[in-house]
Amino acid sequence: MKTVLHLLSGDETEQETTLAIARNLLEDETGSIDDVAVVVQADGVDAITTGVETEDQVQALLEDDVSFKACRNTLDMMDLEEADLIDGIETVPEGAVEVTRLQTDGYAYIRP
Amino acid sequence: MKTVLHLLSGDETEQETTLAIARNLLEDETGSIDDVAVVVQADGVDAITTGVETEDQVQALLEDDVSFKACRNTLDMMDLEEADLIDGIETVPEGAVEVTRLQTDGYAYIRP
Amino acid sequence: MKTVLHLLSGDETEQETTLAIARNLLEDETGSIDDVAVVVQADGVDAITTGVETEDQVQALLEDDVSFKACRNTLDMMDLEEADLIDGIETVPEGAVEVTRLQTDGYAYIRP
Repeated sequence: MKTVLHLLSGDETEQETTLAIARNLLEDETGSIDDVAVVVQADGVDAITTGVETEDQVQALLEDDVSFKACRNTLDMMDLEEADLIDGIETVPEGAVEVTRLQTDGYAYIRP
Repeated sequence: MKTVLHLLSGDETEQETTLAIARNLLEDETGSIDDVAVVVQADGVDAITTGVETEDQVQALLEDDVSFKACRNTLDMMDLEEADLIDGIETVPEGAVEVTRLQTDGYAYIRP
Repeated sequence: MKTVLHLLSGDETEQETTLAIARNLLEDETGSIDDVAVVVQADGVDAITTGVETEDQVQALLEDDVSFKACRNTLDMMDLEEADLIDGIETVPEGAVEVTRLQTDGYAYIRP
């Protein structure tokens, strides 16, 4: 099974819950989760820029093969560049299109 | 691909994000999005009544064939009638049933 | 059709909307909804412990065959035990895995 987490909130509790859920999916004892992707857009981007409090957690998830996909539409609107994101984070043209694509490919959707 | 956006929050940021995402899906460069529906219920209805700040944005989306489906259960509870909604908005008996139906018909789900 | 509601917010409005939507799905006039499950994790657990204001509503939904599945990961982190939950609530090892499993089994997802 595969899961896409959608992070688009500036709320710190929701951001922390998203990262905790990504970790819990990885550590699932039944081993039933084959892939975890996190699509990040809107104010959710605050959780994946360099120097933020969540950086270590995001890096550890990236090392464990969770993919992070940041919305370039959002980056443009916030005057951010890929270099401002934590190393290893990919970008996609539009987060909502990516979320649609992943669900169409069979990913379950979770919006923490 | 088809996408249903679920708007049930009274939070203005979440309402604005929902409308922005609907627009971004329409403008997807790859042209991979064939249909966008917005199901509105609970406090989300505040964003689709006549005279609200978001009226122009909603109207422009309606003109571009985004369908808006308001929950009649919610309208009844809020003592609102169809005439109170921005022109062109449809109603459905219950928003959550409509969201279920659309997903069962292959729509991806996004909850901004 | 089948629907899974995901309750992971401590926000009382979102908790109330979740329970109201579960009720509305049950009462759907078209009878098109065959099963409703509510997966509860993170701060959403506040709405399903014994003695809370929402207890009567949760009990009535349980009696009408809505299943409630609480995340044991969350219970452990909050130092809660199954006995602290409203009678009739099941537990699952990890809420997000259960939500993934249900969607993979054809459940539509709603995050109120």
